[in-house]
This record gives sequence, C-alpha cells and structure tokens, in this order.
Amino acid sequence: MRWWGWGEDHDASPLSARAQELVGAMLGVEPSAPPAERGGPESVALPAPALDAPARTALDKAVGAEHVLDDHAARLRCAAGRSYPDLVRLRSGALDHAPDAVVRPADEAQVAAVLAACAQSGVAVVPFGGGTSVVGGVDAVRGAHHAAIALDLTRMDRVLDLDPKSLTARVEPGLMGPELERRLGNAGLTLGHYPQSFEYSTVGGWVATRSAGQASTGVGRIDELVQAVRCQTPAGVLDTRDVPASAAGPSLRELVVGSEGVLGVITAATLHVRDAPRARRYEAWSVGTFAQGAEAMRRLEQAGAHPDVCRLSDEAETQLTAAMGSSGGRAERLGRAYLRLRGQEEGCLLIAGFEGSDDDVIRRRGRFAEMLRAAGGVFLGERWGQAWRHGRFAAPYLRDELMDRGVMVDTLETACSWSALGATHDAVGAAIGQALADRGTPGLVMCHVSHLYSSGASLYFTFIAPQERGAELDQWRAAKTAAGDAIEAAGATITHHHAVGRDHAPWMPTEVGPLGLEALRALKTRLDPQAIMNPGKLLPDA
Amino acid sequence: MRWWGWGEDHDASPLSARAQELVGAMLGVEPSAPPAERGGPESVALPAPALDAPARTALDKAVGAEHVLDDHAARLRCAAGRSYPDLVRLRSGALDHAPDAVVRPADEAQVAAVLAACAQSGVAVVPFGGGTSVVGGVDAVRGAHHAAIALDLTRMDRVLDLDPKSLTARVEPGLMGPELERRLGNAGLTLGHYPQSFEYSTVGGWVATRSAGQASTGVGRIDELVQAVRCQTPAGVLDTRDVPASAAGPSLRELVVGSEGVLGVITAATLHVRDAPRARRYEAWSVGTFAQGAEAMRRLEQAGAHPDVCRLSDEAETQLTAAMGSSGGRAERLGRAYLRLRGQEEGCLLIAGFEGSDDDVIRRRGRFAEMLRAAGGVFLGERWGQAWRHGRFAAPYLRDELMDRGVMVDTLETACSWSALGATHDAVGAAIGQALADRGTPGLVMCHVSHLYSSGASLYFTFIAPQERGAELDQWRAAKTAAGDAIEAAGATITHHHAVGRDHAPWMPTEVGPLGLEALRALKTRLDPQAIMNPGKLLPDA
Repeated sequence: MRWWGWGEDHDASPLSARAQELVGAMLGVEPSAPPAERGGPESVALPAPALDAPARTALDKAVGAEHVLDDHAARLRCAAGRSYPDLVRLRSGALDHAPDAVVRPADEAQVAAVLAACAQSGVAVVPFGGGTSVVGGVDAVRGAHHAAIALDLTRMDRVLDLDPKSLTARVEPGLMGPELERRLGNAGLTLGHYPQSFEYSTVGGWVATRSAGQASTGVGRIDELVQAVRCQTPAGVLDTRDVPASAAGPSLRELVVGSEGVLGVITAATLHVRDAPRARRYEAWSVGTFAQGAEAMRRLEQAGAHPDVCRLSDEAETQLTAAMGSSGGRAERLGRAYLRLRGQEEGCLLIAGFEGSDDDVIRRRGRFAEMLRAAGGVFLGERWGQAWRHGRFAAPYLRDELMDRGVMVDTLETACSWSALGATHDAVGAAIGQALADRGTPGLVMCHVSHLYSSGASLYFTFIAPQERGAELDQWRAAKTAAGDAIEAAGATITHHHAVGRDHAPWMPTEVGPLGLEALRALKTRLDPQAIMNPGKLLPDA
Repeated sequence: MRWWGWGEDHDASPLSARAQELVGAMLGVEPSAPPAERGGPESVALPAPALDAPARTALDKAVGAEHVLDDHAARLRCAAGRSYPDLVRLRSGALDHAPDAVVRPADEAQVAAVLAACAQSGVAVVPFGGGTSVVGGVDAVRGAHHAAIALDLTRMDRVLDLDPKSLTARVEPGLMGPELERRLGNAGLTLGHYPQSFEYSTVGGWVATRSAGQASTGVGRIDELVQAVRCQTPAGVLDTRDVPASAAGPSLRELVVGSEGVLGVITAATLHVRDAPRARRYEAWSVGTFAQGAEAMRRLEQAGAHPDVCRLSDEAETQLTAAMGSSGGRAERLGRAYLRLRGQEEGCLLIAGFEGSDDDVIRRRGRFAEMLRAAGGVFLGERWGQAWRHGRFAAPYLRDELMDRGVMVDTLETACSWSALGATHDAVGAAIGQALADRGTPGLVMCHVSHLYSSGASLYFTFIAPQERGAELDQWRAAKTAAGDAIEAAGATITHHHAVGRDHAPWMPTEVGPLGLEALRALKTRLDPQAIMNPGKLLPDA
C-alpha cells in the first residue's frame, strides 16, 4: 500500500486531461498542479515510541522478538487507515498517532499471550488487518495506557476447515480478500463478499466492521455470511456454536460481529460460501429520475427480482459519470440521441449485475429486465456495466489523483426505509452542500443507492470541493458533521457499512440510545476489564 | 386454553379407535382408559399467595387495581407453560409455582411503573404472552424475591404503525398470532410466521424466544423478520434504530431477540411483512430413505429451490403417519401399490408447501418438482399436503388424548450442519430410545427435518412411551437429559426454536461457553441490577 494513498502504483492510472478540465469547470477553480515529487515514507514524523522495556520483553516472549517491529516503516504502515482525513494527515508529514510497535502473532495462543502481556504492562492493543478503515478504526490511540501496539493479524491466514457439503469455510482473520477467493476458488467455491477495499482488506476486518460488499444485495452482508465466530478477549475466549440456526438465547455472534476490536480479537469465523459463479452479466439501464428509479428498485427487491449488484445513481452522479466517461465519439452521440428519443436525456444511470449458474443468471436477469422495462427503464447495454465491474475497486485511486490536485473528495453512507429514502437523500445532500458553501468552498454532492433491502436501501454519497488549504481537516469535519446530523435527524443509520471507528462515535448515543451504550460498556468491562482493546473506537468517551 | 391441556374443547378431536389400537400395538401395552371425569381448575392446589401489602399497593398504583388479579383462576392460567412436564404437573393437582398475582399493563409506561414497583418491593417479574412455552419459560420462579408476578401483556395488542411501502409493521408484544394476521390481512399483508403455537402465542413471545414458524424455510425465522425492537428494562429503555441494516457496532437487537424476559420486557417490535399470498400449494412426495431425502433437501436448498414449508419424515415417522392416517380404503391400497412399483413402499414422506403470487408458486414449485423428481422423489399428490396444512396446529391436542390414556409424548429439536445431520439424527434418536428402555418403558422415537438452511437443517424429534406411573417426571427427565447430552456431544444446538427457559438452561454453558455466560450475566446485571426479571430462565444459576 502506498504510504500516502491507496493501493499500489501499478494499479493507478493518471487523471485524464479531460477529467481534470471537467473537475475544474465543475468546482469553478483550476486544479492545482500535482506535487512534482513526493518524499519517502521516512519524511513522515511519528510520535516517539513509548513502549517500555518490560512491555517489550513480554511481547518478545509472546510472539518471538522477530515479530515485534518498531522500525519507522512498520509503525507508519499501521499508523492510519485510508479515510480522507487519514490521507490529509499522512500527506501533512506528521502524525499524532502511531503504534509504538507492530506485533505479529502466528495463532490464537499468541494472541492470548499478547493480550495478557499488554494487560499486564499497560499497553493498548489495536487489532490490524488490512488497515483500510475509513472511519479512524485503526488509529493507535493509547487511552489510559503508556503505549499502544498494532496487532497485525496477517500471519493468521489459514483456512481451518472447508465443508463443501454444508457450504461453510472456517478461516482465520488475517486472510486477505483475493487470497481467500483464490483458495475457495480452488474448491469451486466463492464467498462473494466484495467491499471496495476487497484487494487490501481481511476477513477479520470485514467481520469486525459489519461490512457490506458490492454484491451484498445478492449474497448478503457479512453479518449474514458469518455462521459462527471465535474471539479472544482479555478475559478469555468467546466461541459461538457453529450451527446453522439456534434459539439458545441472545446472539453472542451478533455481539462480536461489528465489535471493531473493542471487545477482543476475532481469531476465526465460519463463513457461508457458495458455488463459484459460472456466468456473470453486468449491464446498464437508464431510468427517468432518481425517484422513479428508487421506486422501481423497491418493487424489484420486494418481488425478489433484484440483481446481485445494484447501483442507482442520482442525477448529479449520473451526469458526472457520463461526463467523466465521455469519449465525445459517434457511438456516444448516437446513444444520447436514443435516450432523447425515449425522453431520458436527463435520466439516471442504473448498474445491475447478476452472477450464478448460467440458468440462474438468465432466469433472474430476464425477470428483472421485464419488470424494469415495465417501469420505464431503458436498456443501455452491457458496456457500461462491464466498465463498472472492471473499475469496481478503482475509486480510491481517483481520490489520490484529485487530492494531488487540491481537491477534497470523500464518501459517506447510510440506510433508511423506502418511505424515508427521498427525504433522506435530499436532506443529507443539502446539508453537505450547505456546509461546503458555508466554508467558502462550494462543491458537488452526488449519491447512489448501493444496496437494496425489502424495507429500504442504503444511500452512498460522494462529495468533492476545492480543498481549503491549511484547514483541510476543519473543512472536512464541517461537511462530515453536517451530514451526520442530517442522517441522525432523518432517523437513518449513521453507517450502513463503513462502521463506527472514531469518526462516527459521536452519533452512537442516538444510534443505540444511552442505555444501549451502557449495555455495550458493561459488556466491554466484563470482557476487557483494563480497557486495553482499541481505545477510542465505537464507544464515545463516557 | 384448557387448564389441563392445549387449546379449546371445540378444536379437539377424540383419538380414533384405530389410532388407539395402533398406539397400543406399537408400545406393547394397552392404553389406559381416559379419565371418566376431570376436576375443575379449582382442583389444582397452588402455593399460598405471598405478595405483601406494600407491593400490592404499588402494583395497584402502577396499572389500576382492576388489573392486578390474584384469584385462583387468574393465577392458575399463568402458572405454567404447555410442555409435557407442565401438563403432568397440572394434571397431578398441585403446582410448586404460581404467580402471586397477574398484572396487566396497558402500555409501556405502565410496564415501566410495574418494573419500578417490583424492583422497589422485591418482586420477581415473569413476562407472559400466550403462555405456550414448552421449556418452562414462564414458571413463576421467585428467585431471591418474596413474590413473583406474571406480567400479562395481552392488553398491549396495538399495531403502532404500518408502512406498506417499506413492508414493515410496528406492533405491541401482546398481539396474538391470528389477530396479527387478521389486521395485516386487512391491508393485504402477512407476516407469515406460523409456529405450532400460532393460535395461542404472541408476537412478544415469538421475539423473546427466537421462534421459528412452520414456513420459516421460506419467510425466515422471527430473528430475520424483526427489524427493530424496543425493550423496557428495569434500568430504562433499550430501543434499536429502525433501519433496514446498519454497521453501527454490535447488534443490540440480537441481544434482545431471544432474551426470554431476563433482561426486560419487549414493548414493541418492527416486523418485516409481505404481500398476503394469493396462491398456496401443499403436496406430498415420497423419497427412498431419510438419508436420500435429506441429501435432496440439501441440494434444493443450496440451489434456492426449496419450498416455504418443508418437512421430511424419517422412516419411523413416515410409518406412523401413514398408519395413523390410514383409512384402509381402496385409494390407499392403490397408492401403496404405486409406491411398491416405484420401489418406495418403505420410503419417507416429504411435505412441501409453497405460498405467494400465482406466478411465483407455479415457478418455484415447478423448479422444486423437477429437481426432486430427478433425485428419485415420487409425487404423492396434494391430498396429504392439504391434510398436513389443515392439521398443522393440531398436534398438541393429540398429546392431550395420549396423555389421557397413560402415554407420554414429547418433542424436542435441534439444528446442525448438513455434514453432521445423519450422525446427529441417529445419535439423538438412539439416546432417547436407550433412556426409555433403561426406565423399563421402551418407546418409539421418530424425527423429521423441519427447516432448511444452506449450511444445515433442524431435526424435530417426537417420542412416545407408556407413562411410568408415579414417576412421570423422572421418566421424562431421563429421556430429555439423554437427548440433550447427545445433542451437545454431536456439536448441534440445544434448541433450534423452542428456546432455553428452565429446561435447556443446563446446556447453556456448552452452548455459549463459560465466558459467553459471563457476558450475558454482565449484561443482565447492568440492565436488571436487582435480578427481578424472569429468574431461573435462560441463564443457569451461577
């Protein structure tokens, strides 16, 4: 992972001249020139390491000295997630937080030994998988302790059991997305969980953050894909019964899922897998307006005729997508003429993806197309659908390119009922827009429906604006706070799939209620009596 | 509800002479004569009421004196659930437990007032809906308190909100199954949750016990049908965000679902509803063996081609079902000849039910039938399917008839992975059979698969044996313990949908692990610091 941004250089592609021009025109400012050269990772100042000698000795004993790293590169690698403010801080050349050491356990017994050592020596523990949090979930906050370590789980990457008859896989937390899919694929299976961070995130991270993938409308969120989970806490092991369903009391599994490392370390999870798809079909449609498209999505979902991947862009996102992808060529002019003929030149873009057996894809796609056409949808063909699939993990690279040119870009998401969808879309979009204008940096806010449920859907917002030089974080916080408050006021959830971390913690009192917070705190106190686990995340300070 | 058994006289039907003969032949003993006459409810001795005057005054103030009942009839009505041991105790003419009063709140504010009064006066609170628990979930255990009340929630039976666009209904806990479906039906909607207790159980009870309905393979368990829940605890209100999905931390909803009244009182739940079905098709099939049938069910479920209702009887249950339903007539002889011709005279019965729109039922049934036929299934027609549907809530009446004749009959259930299904079926069946034989009362054990999941299924066992007169409860406990231990040893769950109550509490340490129990206890201590909520249930004594 590039220390200052997303992914690796060979997967990045530079912003085209046309796209730069477009962004400039939209924001009303000339993008600044990208940095002529960038310092190396050693240019970022980190806080002085604070791990005391007894703690270091205890950690060396727990995992072996060669797996306790405190060099600058290792500390920097685990010092931040990949949110917009994380990247602003990284690029600023100095971080307030960095782990005092990176500790790499090989198995659950070593995790237990590390937690015992840290509880004994007053060291905070930040579980670390791929480090792709966009909500400050891996910041090395020390809490009341003298030091903090990042517990790098990527050595724990085994498939512990594969049961093709029951379609389950029991895996360790440090397995990365592509490697998980490769190993399942060898057995003709797939998990099918594709968050945008897929290439750099881990199973443990997905489970700990209640992640959703791009195809979760079809295959289900990670919460629905986890059958059982095992969690090493400072007080011992929580291990839920590995059965398809149970009525034996409250679900401890659902307590560990989404716990973001504040209760303990997920050391294994049993996941529901499925046959690897033989057929894939991705395609694009146009619908008249966002409201009409959302209503069509609702009817499709409630009729069980939804695609596996379904993204409905609002007018603003559709226009930007079209403009960014525009070639100015003849095919496109013909396409526009066709849409104009159908009365949808100003329509909204809908991407639909189907995966499964050949029969299954044909059958489901046919039913979907029939219903969507009846609702006024216009088929645009497979080209844009395939282009979306091809670029499905690329958006964070684009963010890097824009930040290089002085543009702020961030995303946030929520979910609400179908009844509240239109009002929530409008209120959150307006709040962000107003907050940006109030800073003197008017920007562009756009949105798409990203996941469908029978009772509602998620809304995924993207906003861009000229960066407020020297006050980038204040500018960002103003927009973020306005959005969060609008989401809260709309009765929606503060996060559909990004999790809570530090950035969403201020809204948790409303999200779960004051007594809900107390209940979570009581659980944490029992499982982590010395509060060493991931301080400052999920639960706002009391 | 009949004080000594299930339901109401007008829905009961006497055991046919042929069925009596058959049971006698199977068990090797002559059924005893049914009681010539039965005493009235006043013949059952209850413990002396213990509610002290200050507590009574406080409760009168909380809900109005006319809603605090302490007459014998009211106390008896809420004194027991409807398990086999409950009925043995009721019929014995004396109960160890009965509520000292029955308190009937009108709304959440009154629930809060009752909990405050009870915490203040040292009174245990047993939430009570329909009183159909089969695991001792409503026994009026006083715990460390001087008295116990049954909190009868049936006055809280409002539909608080109906959102046909988002397909959700927010309802109060005391709404009974038939009335809920009637009110939803008026809006063209259904919940579709049909536990065998449907006619006498409540929404609050379903949610509190993590119930499954007969059609849960199709519409999902109650855990999947609850979007949000509100719970009045002694420490305040827990209220989960009413959104389709969220990544905001551990799920408090999943802590309240299945909490069996030990944390607080569920005062509202938002449920996922759906369009009322226009078409229904119930039919019967025969498959060669239980193992072949289970394998076919697995493939159907994993291909998404399962029915909404699916019950696969093993050889023993099939033979008894056939014999009990036998008319000895010509159609039946022809049917047997047909099966013999297809090599399945000794086959296993499979009941499949489909509900939905006309198109949907035709499409899904067609795919199911094609796959099942390819797996060797023989179609038996709709008659037996319709007969099953007609009698779907009647089994408890049959239990009363058998008990009247000196026959023990009980059921228990579990769930496990497909890989473990055959071994679990055999081990649990053998354990029950051996336990009954060891008591000198050899019996009959049969089983069906009742619910399908991608990773496994539930197994529902029925066992009958001659009652051991004077030691009915010891006899029952021997069989129950043997079954529970076998389930535990098989790695299955102690309960798929009957919940924990008192009867399954001994297996909770294995089910959730020692630390899981401690986590639940910590949660209870925070929410119910004086431990007034439903003592003795769910959590085994520490």
